[in-house]
Amino acid sequence: MKKTLSLVCLSLTFSLFAQDDVAVKSQVADAINEIREFIAIPNDALDAADIDRNIMWLKRKFGDRGFNTAVLDTEGLPLFFAATPVSGEKPTILIYMHFDGQSVDPSKWDQPNPYQVVLKKPSDDTFETVSFDELGDDINYNWRLFGRSTSDDKSPIVMLLNAMDLLKKDGKEIPFNIKVILDSEEEKSSKPLPAAVKQYRELLESDFLMIVDGPVHASENPTVVYGCRGITTLTLTTYGPIKPQHSGHYGNYAPNPGFQLAQLLATMKDTEGRVTIPGYYDGISIDGKTDSILKSVPDSDEAIAEKLQFKTAEKVGGYYQEALQYPSLNIRGLGSGWVGDKARTIVPESAIAELDLRLVVESDGNHLKNLVKDHITKQGYIVLNHIPSKEERMQFDKIVTVEEGSVTDAFRTDLDNPYGKFIVNTLNQSFGKEVIQIRTMGGTVPISPFINELKIPAFIVPVVNPDNNQHSPNENIKIGQLAYGIKAFYGILSSEMN
Amino acid sequence: MKKTLSLVCLSLTFSLFAQDDVAVKSQVADAINEIREFIAIPNDALDAADIDRNIMWLKRKFGDRGFNTAVLDTEGLPLFFAATPVSGEKPTILIYMHFDGQSVDPSKWDQPNPYQVVLKKPSDDTFETVSFDELGDDINYNWRLFGRSTSDDKSPIVMLLNAMDLLKKDGKEIPFNIKVILDSEEEKSSKPLPAAVKQYRELLESDFLMIVDGPVHASENPTVVYGCRGITTLTLTTYGPIKPQHSGHYGNYAPNPGFQLAQLLATMKDTEGRVTIPGYYDGISIDGKTDSILKSVPDSDEAIAEKLQFKTAEKVGGYYQEALQYPSLNIRGLGSGWVGDKARTIVPESAIAELDLRLVVESDGNHLKNLVKDHITKQGYIVLNHIPSKEERMQFDKIVTVEEGSVTDAFRTDLDNPYGKFIVNTLNQSFGKEVIQIRTMGGTVPISPFINELKIPAFIVPVVNPDNNQHSPNENIKIGQLAYGIKAFYGILSSEMN
Repeated sequence: MKKTLSLVCLSLTFSLFAQDDVAVKSQVADAINEIREFIAIPNDALDAADIDRNIMWLKRKFGDRGFNTAVLDTEGLPLFFAATPVSGEKPTILIYMHFDGQSVDPSKWDQPNPYQVVLKKPSDDTFETVSFDELGDDINYNWRLFGRSTSDDKSPIVMLLNAMDLLKKDGKEIPFNIKVILDSEEEKSSKPLPAAVKQYRELLESDFLMIVDGPVHASENPTVVYGCRGITTLTLTTYGPIKPQHSGHYGNYAPNPGFQLAQLLATMKDTEGRVTIPGYYDGISIDGKTDSILKSVPDSDEAIAEKLQFKTAEKVGGYYQEALQYPSLNIRGLGSGWVGDKARTIVPESAIAELDLRLVVESDGNHLKNLVKDHITKQGYIVLNHIPSKEERMQFDKIVTVEEGSVTDAFRTDLDNPYGKFIVNTLNQSFGKEVIQIRTMGGTVPISPFINELKIPAFIVPVVNPDNNQHSPNENIKIGQLAYGIKAFYGILSSEMN
Repeated sequence: MKKTLSLVCLSLTFSLFAQDDVAVKSQVADAINEIREFIAIPNDALDAADIDRNIMWLKRKFGDRGFNTAVLDTEGLPLFFAATPVSGEKPTILIYMHFDGQSVDPSKWDQPNPYQVVLKKPSDDTFETVSFDELGDDINYNWRLFGRSTSDDKSPIVMLLNAMDLLKKDGKEIPFNIKVILDSEEEKSSKPLPAAVKQYRELLESDFLMIVDGPVHASENPTVVYGCRGITTLTLTTYGPIKPQHSGHYGNYAPNPGFQLAQLLATMKDTEGRVTIPGYYDGISIDGKTDSILKSVPDSDEAIAEKLQFKTAEKVGGYYQEALQYPSLNIRGLGSGWVGDKARTIVPESAIAELDLRLVVESDGNHLKNLVKDHITKQGYIVLNHIPSKEERMQFDKIVTVEEGSVTDAFRTDLDNPYGKFIVNTLNQSFGKEVIQIRTMGGTVPISPFINELKIPAFIVPVVNPDNNQHSPNENIKIGQLAYGIKAFYGILSSEMN
């Protein structure tokens, strides 16, 4: 019985591949044209008019594919919404993507205009520009498109549109209601999103959420991510003399804010990188089952160390995937006086540490911030939420100003969730490859508003290459990933749930 | 007998004041004109042509006063030398000053051109510009001249020239051979000086050295300084991933260079500011006599704390003057990633601490740097003098690159030195005020080459007001200090040593 089933699966898979390789390649050609058109509309969310122009393009493109569309006003820039006509019997999938992009500094790009897509082929260790005329019919999947948001996150939108086209060509029935919500301020922290999700709750109601953003696992295997870390920040400032003083006149007399800050930070972690503040890791336990899921991810800790050039990783987890199950306490910035050529012989007036705390489901951001503040108090410091007044400076020997950033929550969907199993099975069948399941990814995506409000399971299904230079100059997408994304959407949107 | 002597002193002092108050004021008027002329020649040592123009002015002005002059070529910009015709019987005084000035940013000054002297009078808590026509004959000693190098250090040169004029008018015999050496790169660390002093050794030979630079004590009493701290620097760099990494992906996995640096720095001092590295303070002891000299300086630790707005000073010494008898270990700069608006969610690639070590006579700069390096090694770090190679990064967990700055030695002349006693007595008689004797000032003046090469006692005799905004915009000199400086030079250069 089992054998028969797997034979059936195999033949299904085979037929899907056999018949669609040419069709997919032809669809990829269409997608490339659409990506060039879409990228040509600048998408830095600092410019509201550009965001509007993107929305006009999206209205037309989703409309052409039979979606009903809406522009949802928010406290900030509008969101774009599209939905297939609702059928009550079908389950509803909500797809989240974003069409805004990071700001660009054209002088740092190896092409004249980051909004004009350039085609490049690999050449030794670099890439060489190729005319689009050379693309031909037999598109080379190793060539790449370069431009802002080619990977993050415009191409995935175009992949969905082209998967819809291919489904239509193949006469496939879609067993879901599809809702699409496209963010216009993701690169600016999606500030309007929580209120907007509340406001448009009914419109967004669905059975599960799929976030299509970010790269697949470094192995380039199909990847499903069940959760991500949240984030919050703390800024610590210690104080020396009210103005910088000559280090000859006041060195070893006026209090040095750098030593104060160093002594404070040094108490927060052991020398192997574990946070020593009591309670910081409370509630987290990795059982045997979880451990084997984490270990099933084909990471090489040695390869990471080799790539990042360090001998030993911090010891929060025993290995990379385990480390990501814990909250972090990271010094992202230190500043006091000047360093390098600008260094001056002064006792600086203050020293600043910028910390970010990546959160996991077990760790509440406000609770962790309070633990850090309590710890600082226990070191003999008075914690203020403002710059100290002269009276406070004269009253207390050790003062820290602590500024708190907002909290974006972590999320984690159960690995046994049936929608998750459905996505994994579909990807496995579409590509005939083991699907990598990531319990928690290290970074943060701003989807907790959906989860908090809609109470639905969420999954990140990344489709772009890991080496896409996301957020940096020379962002790109490997053309083969366009085929991957189109096929991934095709598979998920044409398969029945068991 | 004693009584008679002090009566004589008193009458001498009285007569000096009675007769010269008008004469000094007239001389101050001449000095003001000469200062305006001298300041009008820009003196940033980055511009060699400007330095040459200053030297042309000095040649003429010292020549007019009967000095023989010479321009001494060096590895850098030339030094200016002037000497009265030598008489073998007289002791020789060598006077060091400098005519170069700190760079200016005119936009930060409250006057159009920092090289065009502006006259201002105090008005509430600030100053109000006054036309030079309003100066009149009865010059107001509380008015000020504003411009680059009005205090640091061009006016003192003009005070010497005008003291020479007044001595001539009064027909005074000068019981010294006078040699004057004027530095052209003091604000750029006087790099050519050590080699130049060696090269021109015979020319510079003298019995004692008087440095006329810097402000008098905050009390504005006559001040003689017997020593100053030296300086050297260390730059420490710790390392994280080879390039900045996303703090979500690699926070609490890739080593954080900020925590490493904090832990390293935290071990170097106790929480009250004392260096805990064994041997750092070796050889220093403050005996009863020294303690009373230090305590005779009319400082108010309370006033300093009030002014700099801190509750408690570091505990290296029990009070301000005592603290300056010890070497410092000062964090003058910290840098890692970004802080403030530019903060980014990264694990930075490195963290840097800029340290300066102020030295005293008992502490050899190279020895202290070695103590710090040994201490770092004892914390489990490998100390490199270069950026680590990939091999080194993969071989060692904890790496610090230590860059060492050059050493400028401290100096300290014995407080019983007869030339010192002579200067103190003369100032005491000229002004009828207690002379403040500073054993070691906190800052550094680059005169160790003279002391090392010529083996002569050295004294700093500051003449300008403490609130002169030295090195900053709106540098100024109180006109009363011109009278002070002229009288100080007059007294010293016309008094016989006992």
